[in-house]
Order: sequence, then structure tokens, then C-alpha cells
Amino acid sequence: MANVPYKIYLNEEELPKKWLNIKAFMKELPEPFINPGTGKPCTADELKPVFCDELVAQEMNTTDKFIDIPEDIQAFYKMFRPSPVVRAYNLEKALGTPAEIYYKFEGTNTSGSHKLNSAAPQVYYAKKQGLTHLTTETGAGQWGTALSMAAAFYGIDLKVYMVKVSSEQKPYRKAVIETYGAEVIPSPSNTTEVGRKILAENPGTGGSLGCAISEAMETALKTPNCKYVLGSVLDHVILHQTIIGQELKTALDKYGVTPDVLIGCVGGGSNFGGLIAPYVADKIEGKNNIEIIAAEPASCPSLTRGKYAYDFGDTGKTTPLMKMYTLGNGFMPSPNHAGGLRFHGMSPIVSKLYHDGYFRAESYEQTKVFEAATLFARTEGTLPAPESSHAICCAIEEALKCKESGEKKTIVFGLSGTGYFDMTAYKAFHEGTMTDYIPTDEDLEKGFATLPQI
Amino acid sequence: MANVPYKIYLNEEELPKKWLNIKAFMKELPEPFINPGTGKPCTADELKPVFCDELVAQEMNTTDKFIDIPEDIQAFYKMFRPSPVVRAYNLEKALGTPAEIYYKFEGTNTSGSHKLNSAAPQVYYAKKQGLTHLTTETGAGQWGTALSMAAAFYGIDLKVYMVKVSSEQKPYRKAVIETYGAEVIPSPSNTTEVGRKILAENPGTGGSLGCAISEAMETALKTPNCKYVLGSVLDHVILHQTIIGQELKTALDKYGVTPDVLIGCVGGGSNFGGLIAPYVADKIEGKNNIEIIAAEPASCPSLTRGKYAYDFGDTGKTTPLMKMYTLGNGFMPSPNHAGGLRFHGMSPIVSKLYHDGYFRAESYEQTKVFEAATLFARTEGTLPAPESSHAICCAIEEALKCKESGEKKTIVFGLSGTGYFDMTAYKAFHEGTMTDYIPTDEDLEKGFATLPQI
Repeated sequence: MANVPYKIYLNEEELPKKWLNIKAFMKELPEPFINPGTGKPCTADELKPVFCDELVAQEMNTTDKFIDIPEDIQAFYKMFRPSPVVRAYNLEKALGTPAEIYYKFEGTNTSGSHKLNSAAPQVYYAKKQGLTHLTTETGAGQWGTALSMAAAFYGIDLKVYMVKVSSEQKPYRKAVIETYGAEVIPSPSNTTEVGRKILAENPGTGGSLGCAISEAMETALKTPNCKYVLGSVLDHVILHQTIIGQELKTALDKYGVTPDVLIGCVGGGSNFGGLIAPYVADKIEGKNNIEIIAAEPASCPSLTRGKYAYDFGDTGKTTPLMKMYTLGNGFMPSPNHAGGLRFHGMSPIVSKLYHDGYFRAESYEQTKVFEAATLFARTEGTLPAPESSHAICCAIEEALKCKESGEKKTIVFGLSGTGYFDMTAYKAFHEGTMTDYIPTDEDLEKGFATLPQI
Repeated sequence: MANVPYKIYLNEEELPKKWLNIKAFMKELPEPFINPGTGKPCTADELKPVFCDELVAQEMNTTDKFIDIPEDIQAFYKMFRPSPVVRAYNLEKALGTPAEIYYKFEGTNTSGSHKLNSAAPQVYYAKKQGLTHLTTETGAGQWGTALSMAAAFYGIDLKVYMVKVSSEQKPYRKAVIETYGAEVIPSPSNTTEVGRKILAENPGTGGSLGCAISEAMETALKTPNCKYVLGSVLDHVILHQTIIGQELKTALDKYGVTPDVLIGCVGGGSNFGGLIAPYVADKIEGKNNIEIIAAEPASCPSLTRGKYAYDFGDTGKTTPLMKMYTLGNGFMPSPNHAGGLRFHGMSPIVSKLYHDGYFRAESYEQTKVFEAATLFARTEGTLPAPESSHAICCAIEEALKCKESGEKKTIVFGLSGTGYFDMTAYKAFHEGTMTDYIPTDEDLEKGFATLPQI
């Protein structure tokens, strides 16, 4: 094996020119979306009032193993990609492990995360279709930031419905989005029927992602030349995120590095699905037997404690029904849970791969996650996002197992972003006021009770 | 010329192994430090109670053109370097200029700026000397963050005196520094004599950089095994920052790119001095005739409106006297001025080069700077630091001159950092509440009146 540098950067000509369509590799496809009105599988035409045509086509594509990345998007990607693959020499040393640890770092752009990988094509396709306006929702703010960057670049007007409590707790996230020229509307708002209804019923509410989704969708439907875009969960978002895993594999292959263990954090599933894509495609085809692990929060444990069932994607029950691991659309993670990874459900692709046994999942309590994050920051320099730190936590656990057993495994994880806008949570951890929350079985039953009967 | 990619990354083996000592290239040396007590040039022994031995040796070194970077520091640099050289294709297009624009981007590490380039060696040398404690001051917070990262890495105890008003306005900067294990003390504080004195005289004060320096120096002198470290102005800091210019030149040379214009923002001078080092060394030796421009704020115009005179480095008048461009140690920039670049003086090396005509300086009002910053963010993706945006502003001005004249110049600038912790200023700009301030001649006279008589 060649001497591995601290950081591996691909050259521009080595960057992927196609996205990888996992569905075309799967032996069994995920179950289709169901239209809750008809009880039948959704058609493309039923999705087009809400989503761009090209994205609907990608969502429905189950046959093409690779889909060309348009040259315009390749050019946009070059603004912030390739992202580096880093050999965590200093973390290895701090842990005293014989394992080799690598991470693919998606946080070097201003959105601070992988979200820009899908924001760019989603806005590009909207522009290409002649749209002039887009709407979306954002919770923690990474998606809203990424989308505002892409919207500024392509000259599209963007309204971001930001969960009210988040827009108040993260005024700087809001300011970044506004610097990129997008309009931030704290949700619930008076700009939509659903918002006014919720405000009338509950004037003091801090909002929720489910409510913000409903407002963004309503506005998209009522605005001429406008569609709604979503930053995770859906198949086309996972498709765009496969740029992560493909770059990772190309970089590691250059140095003859084969992962024994591949770890990603998982919330809606877009980072995880994109990270594992080329490796899981090979695994499906019997070309590797890599151990893949999804790291999720113990406070919102959709894979480790959820049900594989049809459910709505939002608490407002306005989306199609998706077959996924879910805690029930009425499940609310504890407010003390920091960062993202708060979604009650999971990408249908990721859910199906999990159901079919291609990877396992582990859950972590947040104080343990912030301990891992702090060790990582102090040894590797980069201050990680709370979300990404679930993967760090899992990687450290695996590396310590190697220390115990003496195994020299190659552990690779995805570092999906930085925590520069999450300092309130770090402060709480540092000051010892951060607490953990694990839902009781009763809490889960309450969530499951909200699952639709179909 | 080879086709230039969006980003040029050097390989690890191409990274500089030596720092460049500008003084050994200069035809005339900067004037020496003067001990205000004796009126005579400072000796190394007079500096050693405050600074590490190795740093004092570097400060005094006027003969070695290159100084080896210890292997330990090279390894630390590999954690966050090389930083990319970016071809600003999208900015060029937005401006419609025939000029080619490049920038060297130092903001991809968690400190968000170039400051880590000098923090690493300063802490390394302290550790090597057997020290266990360090003190410093920080205003905007970039230096405090960088030093806390290096201190965590090398296991050194660090106290950061943070200008009180800044620690209150930037609680997240404080939280980052604390995450890296350093202690943040809002200054003035009760932990020092000078702090108690200032608090007694002026209980409601928000503090100043000068006061924080005095407190950090006092604590260093009174603590066993402790020294004080400084993040700009001094010759050894500029020495460490020459890693920027050397990487830049190696990267551009690979693609046959020769700058016609080289632009850096300038506050204390360490980023600017480090950026221009190899180019100005060649210019001194008659090997190029590159146009070099220092971009400074109109509200703190030390180069464009200051005097070349001996002055103290702090308002507390505790440092040696330095010959530099200065507005007088009593000069206070308007509180409405965002970000850093608030220092009344200027690096003696940078001052001497300016005095001898190797570059020119331009000053910019802050609303114009934030306009440039916003255009840059929207076209190039990255949200720049207010400090760095002075260089962007100057580069845009030069590019628009080319548009007028039709000249196809190559414009290169240093983007010293990101603005992720400066969103209060961006918010003020966005909301239209940001104002400009240009000191009147009377304001300047008041500052000049505080210059020492020697």
C-alpha cells in the first residue's frame, strides 16, 4: 500500500460524472409510495404538482444503474468538491488503537454539510424547467443554508419556512440564509392557511418540522412557477448524495485501502445512503462483505426501535405514504435533543436495505456523542456537527474493540458536517447541563398509535 | 498554460518545509525594538521573560533566508493544510471582467482563519521548552480559537483574555475556545492587578485589546512555567505565516500563473506579510515587478493615514517600542466597525516594506466591504470574514478596472478566513443598520498626540 497522506484530494478529472442509482442494484425494490386518497401507488403525475419533473423522473427510476450529472451541476460541484478523505492519524494515536481510521469530510463548504450536494441539482432542475420560485422547510438550518446558496447561484427566489424555535435559537443560521438572499419565515406563520390554523389553536407554539413542511408545500402549490423541494428522505436526494460515497471509494481505491467497517450517521438517511452507495451496491452483487453501521440517536431511534410500516412523512399527514422504519408521524423527540436527526421516519431506500440485512444500526445517547465530538475536535482539529458525531462515536467504539482484540481493521466513517452553528449544544455539554433522553416503551407506543391504518 | 482547475491543492510532498525570513531579503532592515526604560534596542534577554526562547531567536534572526519547519509542526500543518488556491471563475463571470481572479483560501480549518499557522509553532516551541502554561488575548476571537486548538493538541494549559464586550457579543466563539479546553476570561477581570485597577476606575467598561494584552502579559509573568504569545504584528508571526505565500506560489507556478496584482487585507500585518512573502522577496531581488496592494479599513487607516514612528504595541504602554505605521496607541476605531483589523499599529516588517515602496495601500469603508462580501458569497459560495472581505473589495475594484480597459490581468488575493462567527455584522448590513465611519483629521490628531516622544 502506498504511503497514505493525511488528506486525499481527488483531481477534478477524477470526480464522478454520474450519480449511482442504488435501486437499480437492489434485488428487491423498496415498496412504492401510496396515495393516501386512492390507496394506490402514486403516479409520476401525482407528484408533479409538488416536485420538478426531472426530480420526479429520478424518484421513479429503478432501472438505470448510473444517471449522468449535467455539466452545469458538475461545475457547481467543483466550487466545493472534491471533499477530502482524511486519515485520522491523530485520533488513532489518541485511542492507541491498531485500527486505521479514515473519514470523508463533507463540511468544508459554507452550508457546513453534505446538504449542498442535493441543493445544487434540485435548484438547477427547477431553473431548467423555467421555475422562478421555490419553497422549503428547515429545522437545524443546514438544508436551508445549502438551498439558499444554490438559489443565489442560479437566481431563483426562495422562501424558507424555518421552525420558529430554531429561527429564534439560531439567529445566525437565519442571517446566513438571508445573506444568500432567501426569505426566512418562522413557522408557523400567518402566510399560509395551515399556519394560521395552527397559530389560532396554539398561539405560543414553537413550531415543528411537520408544520413547516405543510406550510412550504401549501405555498408552493399556491405560487405561480413555484415548486417545493426537500433535503432528505426521498430517493432522488439519496441519488444526488451518492457523490459522497463514489468520491470516497475512488480516493481509497487509489491507495489500495479497503474498508472493513463503514459507518455513517443517519437521520432522514440521505447522508448515510449517499455514503454507503457504491459499497452497498458491491455488497448486493456479492463483491464485498463489508460491515456497514448506521449510527442514530437513542432519543429518536427509528431503525433500532421503530417499525417497518407505511407512514406519512410529516406530522400534518399531507405527504404520500412511504414504507419505512418509523416511530410514527406523531412521535416527537425530546426537546433536549441537540441538532438534527429528529425525523420520525427514514428514507425508504435505507429502510429496505436495513430490512434486508445489508447493514446494522446502533443508537447513542447524546452526552456520549458530545464526548466523542470533543475528543475528535481536540485531536483532529475539526469541530464536528452533533449529527456527524454519532458516526464518530460509533467509529471510536469500533476502534476500541480493535484495541481490545488486537485487530488491525480499517474503519471508515462519514463526517457529514461541522458544528459551528451548534455551539449552544456544545456549551451545554461543556457546562454539564446537557441531559440524555431515551424514550420509554410507552413513549414509543404513543408514536406507533399515530401510524395510519392501511 | 495548462487548464486551470477550480481548486489547486498541493500534494503533501509539495508543502513548504521551511519558512521564509523576509528580513534576510530586505535591503534595509526594519528599525529594532526599543526598550522604553533604557531607550536602547531590546536584547534577546530582555524579551525572554515574556516570550519563548525559540520565538525570540526567530524574532531576532535577520540573516537566514529560510528557517526549517520542525517535522512535528509539518505534521500539525498536514491536519489543515494545504489550503486551496481557487480560481474565481464564477466571480469573474459575475463581474464580466477579462481579468483572471485567484484566491488563496485559509478558512477551511475550525479556527476559520490563517491564525492556526502561527498558533501551531508557538505552542510547539513552548512545549519543547518545557512550559506548561500559556496566556494570550483575543478580540474578534480567531486567534483565541486557533491557539486553543494548538494548546489542546500539544496538551498545554491556556488562559485567553477575551475583550469583555467581544466575549458577550460572541458567546459562540467563547464556547468554541472552551470546547478546546482553554479558559476564557472576559477582560478586564479581577485576576490581575491591571484588570482590578481598570475595573476600579471604570466599572462598566467593555474592555479593549490593549487591556487584554496587559492582563495576559501580567499573568504570564506571574505564573510558573508560563509565557505569553501573540497572534500578529511580530516578526516571528509573519515568519510562520509565510507558509501561505509559499504554498500559493508553488500552486500558481505549477500552472504557469504569474500574478500581475497581489492583494491582501491588513490589520496587524501577519496575513498580509505571509501572503506576499515570496513575491516581495523576488521583487526586492528585482525578479518581478508585481503590483502589491494592502487593503485596510477606512475606519482604522494605519497605512494610508498613519505616521511611520516609534510607538507602543498596546494602549497600556507595556510593550517595547516598535517603529511602525501607527495611528497612535491611544487611537480607538469607532465601535461600529465590524470584525478585526482594529489595531492602531502595523507589523514593523510590513511597515518598512511599505515605507520603502514595495507596495501600495488602499482603504475601504465597511458597507462597501460587505457589499463585496455578499457578492462573493453568492457567486463563489464561501461566506467570507469581514477582514478578508477588504481584499475581495480591492480585487473586485481591480477587476472592474480591467473590464474598463480591456486588460486581461491576473489578480490574486488572500482570503484569510470565513465569517461564520460574524453574522451579527452581516445581519446589520442586510438590515441596513450598518454605518460607515471615517476618522476626521481631528480624530487622527488625538491619536497622534499619544505617540511617545523619543
